Amino acid sequence: MKIAVDASGGEYAPHEIVKGAIKASQEYGVEIILVGNRSMLHVQAGRHLKKGEISIVDAKETIGMHESPVKAVRSKPNSSIVVGINLVKSNAVSAFVSAGNTGAIVTAAFFNLGKIKGVERPALCSLVDIVPSDPVLFLDAGVNVDCRPNHLVEFAHLGTIYSQHVLGIDSPRVGLLSNGEEKTKGNRLTKETYGMLKRSNLNFIGNMEGQDILKGIADVIVTDGFTGNIVLKTIEGLGDTFLFSLRQLGHLSSAAYNVRARALLRDISLSSWVRKMDYREHGGACLLGVNGNVIIAHGRSQAKAIKNAIGLAKKTVERNMTKAISEYERGEGNFKPTPPEGG
Amino acid sequence: MKIAVDASGGEYAPHEIVKGAIKASQEYGVEIILVGNRSMLHVQAGRHLKKGEISIVDAKETIGMHESPVKAVRSKPNSSIVVGINLVKSNAVSAFVSAGNTGAIVTAAFFNLGKIKGVERPALCSLVDIVPSDPVLFLDAGVNVDCRPNHLVEFAHLGTIYSQHVLGIDSPRVGLLSNGEEKTKGNRLTKETYGMLKRSNLNFIGNMEGQDILKGIADVIVTDGFTGNIVLKTIEGLGDTFLFSLRQLGHLSSAAYNVRARALLRDISLSSWVRKMDYREHGGACLLGVNGNVIIAHGRSQAKAIKNAIGLAKKTVERNMTKAISEYERGEGNFKPTPPEGG
Repeated sequence: MKIAVDASGGEYAPHEIVKGAIKASQEYGVEIILVGNRSMLHVQAGRHLKKGEISIVDAKETIGMHESPVKAVRSKPNSSIVVGINLVKSNAVSAFVSAGNTGAIVTAAFFNLGKIKGVERPALCSLVDIVPSDPVLFLDAGVNVDCRPNHLVEFAHLGTIYSQHVLGIDSPRVGLLSNGEEKTKGNRLTKETYGMLKRSNLNFIGNMEGQDILKGIADVIVTDGFTGNIVLKTIEGLGDTFLFSLRQLGHLSSAAYNVRARALLRDISLSSWVRKMDYREHGGACLLGVNGNVIIAHGRSQAKAIKNAIGLAKKTVERNMTKAISEYERGEGNFKPTPPEGG
Repeated sequence: MKIAVDASGGEYAPHEIVKGAIKASQEYGVEIILVGNRSMLHVQAGRHLKKGEISIVDAKETIGMHESPVKAVRSKPNSSIVVGINLVKSNAVSAFVSAGNTGAIVTAAFFNLGKIKGVERPALCSLVDIVPSDPVLFLDAGVNVDCRPNHLVEFAHLGTIYSQHVLGIDSPRVGLLSNGEEKTKGNRLTKETYGMLKRSNLNFIGNMEGQDILKGIADVIVTDGFTGNIVLKTIEGLGDTFLFSLRQLGHLSSAAYNVRARALLRDISLSSWVRKMDYREHGGACLLGVNGNVIIAHGRSQAKAIKNAIGLAKKTVERNMTKAISEYERGEGNFKPTPPEGG
């Protein structure tokens, strides 16, 4: 399997990207195509190129993290993002992984790959696994900031398919993010969505509140891309604050505490859920509903996160998500929300 | 100063409420009126009643946490919430503090106190002080789930007034919660709000992302009540997860670690920002824009949180917030958003 990796995208490009890509090729046995500045990557990837684990596709331009997506994608056809997406389009690779400008990746995917037939609004589906025993798919993570109820229902279907195929959950529990558990709670958007989800063939468990996101109540949590983006970034920010406080305590404590106490502090820092709060360790999010496998890693991804994102890409390819989504739509005929009763 | 406290509201009522109220009366020198079941409170408050620090106003009914607000307020005129709000209305007390059903408190306040002239949408303003050096006012915390841009501008003004008067900040920096920093980012609601805030006389610093909420960049963060409620509850949920993990580590460690290591674990649990993540320690949120001082404490408030909420009520009364809001509206003539240029 060939996977293209954007070597120019993200805060730690290209060094950490290349490091993560090399690790992934060794660990997962995938063939990596690094997309970026050829001469620079030649130096970075060095001997791995000779071994044939990794190859390079030249992309002379880079889209910055703060560039306007549509403008950047249109004006930079030789950027690593556009070149990478086009490798997916031409079937030269099975998937593209990037930690670059999310808006630009989504735009390039929309323009050049297009939507899967039957899908109205592709969505970014983020795997939140801070509590490792209770991973949850969270979507939309930021693509669709203004949604109608049928869009949220579509996200519920997309998340369900991904949960079934990639996480292996038979009948994923779908929760609707809202400001209260009762069905009377919510804004206009979620109140109407509630009824539509209730009438669908999904395993809809009702409204979920912010404090329940990490509690393993649902397998798929659905929300609009505006709220979704803010909630995920809030979780990220709290993780930062927490890690910073732990480190400060570590500095303060070196005199006050003994060796075992410092060892404990290290244990806490390394404990799985604390590490999961550090986005540099995270895997990626999958852009669901476009014609091709696109994994978006966090802009602050370091080697391990890139490696994990490539692992997610491999799984997504193996489970043939684009096919699953298009067949689901055609096969069960319930991708679109069922009409209101008596309507 | 007399402050009415809902002795029947919240998860730990009446015991923790009474305990917190007694502490507040001693610490702040305020006179507490407990509103609730007289005979039960007589037993709880005991000798403090005799000393005159505390008195009781009977309220035989209780509104449960999951009752429908409008129905409950209409059908239970003798509930602690309705009786407490009416004590504010009749000027028998200067403020009302409750950890009960938020929707019912807001409804009772709307029905019986009414809005301050010039205010269209009263909002719940929550003080987020997880990082004690960088407290931030966050509104709307959940009253107005569907908003128009002028409502968010109104929240920005209300938050500014509260920040100036209660926190003593001269020119509070106002941030607009969005899914990106750039002014082009946001949903329809925030994009339009951005321009209106830019043209206002507020100290508007632009869009803020989820990860920046705790970073001390802004003094007032504005959002709609749907997003605001979800974000605050997400923070709460993460706090729970974190405290739970720490406690688990504490149990595991009793054998593995020595006395000093356990002491360190205790230090972490007691460190200020960890404690602040525990909502049982939190103070309250102020309902801004109604004719009277109403402080809503978290439903899981224990004695300390109730004491803090009463402290906030005292400050709110002393700084005469309702007067400040009505004068601001009249005086500066800029409470309403300025019209678009050339409009």
